[in-house]
Amino acid sequence: MTVPARVRRGAIGVFDSGVGGLTVAAALSRALPREHILYLGDTARLPYGTKSEQTVARYTQTNVDFLAGRGVKAVVVACNTASALALPHLVTDLPVWGVIEPGARRAAEVTRGRVGILATESTVRSGAYARALHARRADLEVLSQPCPLLVPLVEEGWFDDPVTRQVVERYLAPLLEREVDTLVLGCTHYPLLAPLIAEFAGPGITLVDSAAAVAAEVAAGLAGAGLAATVRQGEDHVCVTDVGERFERLAREILQRPTRLELVDLGETEREGVR
Amino acid sequence: MTVPARVRRGAIGVFDSGVGGLTVAAALSRALPREHILYLGDTARLPYGTKSEQTVARYTQTNVDFLAGRGVKAVVVACNTASALALPHLVTDLPVWGVIEPGARRAAEVTRGRVGILATESTVRSGAYARALHARRADLEVLSQPCPLLVPLVEEGWFDDPVTRQVVERYLAPLLEREVDTLVLGCTHYPLLAPLIAEFAGPGITLVDSAAAVAAEVAAGLAGAGLAATVRQGEDHVCVTDVGERFERLAREILQRPTRLELVDLGETEREGVR
Repeated sequence: MTVPARVRRGAIGVFDSGVGGLTVAAALSRALPREHILYLGDTARLPYGTKSEQTVARYTQTNVDFLAGRGVKAVVVACNTASALALPHLVTDLPVWGVIEPGARRAAEVTRGRVGILATESTVRSGAYARALHARRADLEVLSQPCPLLVPLVEEGWFDDPVTRQVVERYLAPLLEREVDTLVLGCTHYPLLAPLIAEFAGPGITLVDSAAAVAAEVAAGLAGAGLAATVRQGEDHVCVTDVGERFERLAREILQRPTRLELVDLGETEREGVR
Repeated sequence: MTVPARVRRGAIGVFDSGVGGLTVAAALSRALPREHILYLGDTARLPYGTKSEQTVARYTQTNVDFLAGRGVKAVVVACNTASALALPHLVTDLPVWGVIEPGARRAAEVTRGRVGILATESTVRSGAYARALHARRADLEVLSQPCPLLVPLVEEGWFDDPVTRQVVERYLAPLLEREVDTLVLGCTHYPLLAPLIAEFAGPGITLVDSAAAVAAEVAAGLAGAGLAATVRQGEDHVCVTDVGERFERLAREILQRPTRLELVDLGETEREGVR
């Protein structure tokens, strides 16, 4: 398959409602060091995890349209809620990866039979992980736990804090009682709490973070489609729809370096779309 | 002053980013039993409390335009963040009340000299309460505490919970150490935590909830402008920009009755505005 060099040189577009998807962007950079990444954090409209399918689908479409307008060659939906709710509605010509399928595939590979899902309310309500897991192994038992306070706790920076410990312990309790052997971190913010979650889960439970699984699938997919960059491309770039210190603080925590942000207005994109 | 009966019969438009402003709507209903209220909860774009001045100003304008389009006779911005950040930018012919000025006036009346403000990050950063208090009494000492976890905890329904107790205790500690004598509940969600806050504050500290103060000012203002309804108007009505059980659950908690919701699309309003 032949693809023009111009297209191969395009960035991989990655978006999330906020800063959490940078955990996926970081995994992509590790797996694909030649590619450059254009990241969009839709911070003006976050969080997605408490919003309806219709609203999350509309937001996802404007985000993908924005990235397409910037000339990306592929899109990674680095938000579990958007992957769960919006991918079936998305209209685009670009190759697109979500985070649910790769995470579910990895969990189905490692589990001994009982999988716990930690996710936002909307992701849990969608049933997307259970469907993806059962499509691979119909015998699996899947238990889901909505964890609406974990994103605000991460955003507050209380990674290892007595309050966060109690909240994690409470959310994990029903899953541990049912003796899950695998826990899916079903929100891109949760890897920042992985040490705490692992501590309460104990050594007998495998944690699955979609980020590495997604990166591997994107690498294989780009290579298969002749879209992989052959030489090191430009620097990564981060856009946000609202300014704020929180994003910068957490981006530094995730990427381990300071990041310059470009403020963009998707409202304009959305309005242009109907002219 | 003569105002057409048609205008006097209009609703009072009230908006908040979410469900919290219903604490203000409830106070308005108690103070003005003849008026009917059109409430808008901008749940598709909540929360406002972590977002920038520019973004909150844009959201506030679309909300007020929506309420004006529905024929309200006045608007109450029942959101501290929007009152703090967006009122100076708002373009409208309607009389508008925010919640900061009435809350600050009440606090300035009752304090012995040292006022603590509990609010969202954006409200604290705006300095709006400190300005409003100092405009009334330049001698006041004003101490502010951002409380980003209180809204998620209220939304989770953990009103009296060990986790919420610790978070409240931690947020109050620096204010109690500085011996404030008055505490302003500077976010419309916080009245739902008033019993817990009062318990930690102790009997020597006066809690100020803007809702009652706003209702009194709106009542006086409508009467002064000849805009008060003279006979009981229609039923109150609640619009939301996104559907969700959380809103219904908390609305029942605040209004002590079930509430029917109308789903509205402000994106359309916004787009029509630029045609």
